[in-house]
Amino acid sequence: MNVFVIGIGLIGGSMVLDIQDNYPEAIIHGIDANPEHLEKALALKIIHKKATFSDLEFADVVIISIPVDIQLAVIPKVLDTVNDHCLVIDVGSTKSQICEAVKNHPKRRNFLATHPIAGTEFSGPQAALRGLFKSKTNIICEVEKTAFKLQEKALEIFTKLGMRIRYMEPKSHDKHIAYVSHLSHISSFMLGKTVIEKEKNERDIFDMAGSGFASTVRLAKSSPAMWTPIFQQNKENVIETLEEYITNLQQFKELMLNDDFSEIHQEMENTNYIKQILNGIK
Amino acid sequence: MNVFVIGIGLIGGSMVLDIQDNYPEAIIHGIDANPEHLEKALALKIIHKKATFSDLEFADVVIISIPVDIQLAVIPKVLDTVNDHCLVIDVGSTKSQICEAVKNHPKRRNFLATHPIAGTEFSGPQAALRGLFKSKTNIICEVEKTAFKLQEKALEIFTKLGMRIRYMEPKSHDKHIAYVSHLSHISSFMLGKTVIEKEKNERDIFDMAGSGFASTVRLAKSSPAMWTPIFQQNKENVIETLEEYITNLQQFKELMLNDDFSEIHQEMENTNYIKQILNGIK
Repeated sequence: MNVFVIGIGLIGGSMVLDIQDNYPEAIIHGIDANPEHLEKALALKIIHKKATFSDLEFADVVIISIPVDIQLAVIPKVLDTVNDHCLVIDVGSTKSQICEAVKNHPKRRNFLATHPIAGTEFSGPQAALRGLFKSKTNIICEVEKTAFKLQEKALEIFTKLGMRIRYMEPKSHDKHIAYVSHLSHISSFMLGKTVIEKEKNERDIFDMAGSGFASTVRLAKSSPAMWTPIFQQNKENVIETLEEYITNLQQFKELMLNDDFSEIHQEMENTNYIKQILNGIK
Repeated sequence: MNVFVIGIGLIGGSMVLDIQDNYPEAIIHGIDANPEHLEKALALKIIHKKATFSDLEFADVVIISIPVDIQLAVIPKVLDTVNDHCLVIDVGSTKSQICEAVKNHPKRRNFLATHPIAGTEFSGPQAALRGLFKSKTNIICEVEKTAFKLQEKALEIFTKLGMRIRYMEPKSHDKHIAYVSHLSHISSFMLGKTVIEKEKNERDIFDMAGSGFASTVRLAKSSPAMWTPIFQQNKENVIETLEEYITNLQQFKELMLNDDFSEIHQEMENTNYIKQILNGIK
């Protein structure tokens, strides 16, 4: 099985490491715009061979794990080149625009739109991890538009990687993921910004920061190259979540200004309900 | 050594567990307003004996780990009862009001105001953990107002627990801790609130939540009884941080509305600087 990974970072790199473990006969070919990433991926044995777009005609599976804006141009180009039995998977954090971009492509049935909900705040080939997808959710969009045999092939891979599958419409995916993922990234980046602005001349102050601060700003380490186009593609939904978040913060501030601490207590107690929701998320 | 812990939860409970390990001869006496907590603390061997306020006259060390509003009344009462060689430590997240509350107490020199920067999002005796304070920072305020021998005793305990010591003025502590701790809690609670409001009728949606969401809302599990009085006591500083945070979020939203994604990229890149700051925080 010839597996090609385009973009060898956290997600693509981790995926082909698991594919190597589950398909010992698989040959992993890597394509990356950054030659250093390719060399590093070879050295780390994430890929077996460097490849180019013209080699894609020999591909059985192509995993496209690049920023979501570049995907819009690259996925049609990949579909142009691959043969009829090849499965092309994308793993981006937004699904509407990519489904729209390929909807009339003659090889639409070779494509499967997915979003594995897995990751860390790190990026590049050195961030690739074995077992990253175990017990994680993979959201598949417009499954009915993919050829049945290629759906089967994809499900076999995802199942071997330990993933749970959920099916959703792209618009619904993008709306909900704005709440449970995209907004978290903005809240974290802006928290980091607020503290850095205030405290950057007082490095000692960060001795006061504990694990709680580290946890809430962890996502502010994420890759801007990956996240800028996600916010751009999901602009409307993200702005909506951001407005609701800002409204809630303003209301909290008003309660403080009015010394209404019994209501603040109540708000926090209601939000403790998040404990039940988070059960099951590592 | 007779050690009394008033309020046997995450911080107080963890502290006396470590004291037991480092001072095998220490007898740990527990006082708690909640009789169930006392029973649980006995069963978990966090304390050796239940005690009452009148027993405090036999205390060598008293650790007061209760909500910061109740501290204001309890600490003077404890100081009224203890003998002249007894060390009384508080471990609250705010320091100005407590230092003010004891400043004219005849036993002021028996008191040491501290803030160990350690914790988890859990509470109650069952949240107590051995080794919680290892390599963590303990901020001590107004050290010069504590009797020299009692400073020494406290430092010996903190050193055995593995803590790094930092000395600060109470006002400075409260100002900076608003940024690196109190604001994180509000950002997390309001993130949890925003998502729950939107998604509570769609439980399945939380299948879409990954480790990033879990990390940013972790602090929203924290105890409202502990946190409400912290926000109340540190009201001015917290409101200031909240205003700056809201301004940054609004500015981010404006950049999105104006499609200025190159500036958004730049903002995130600048904030990635948090990586350096977080080095060294587990």
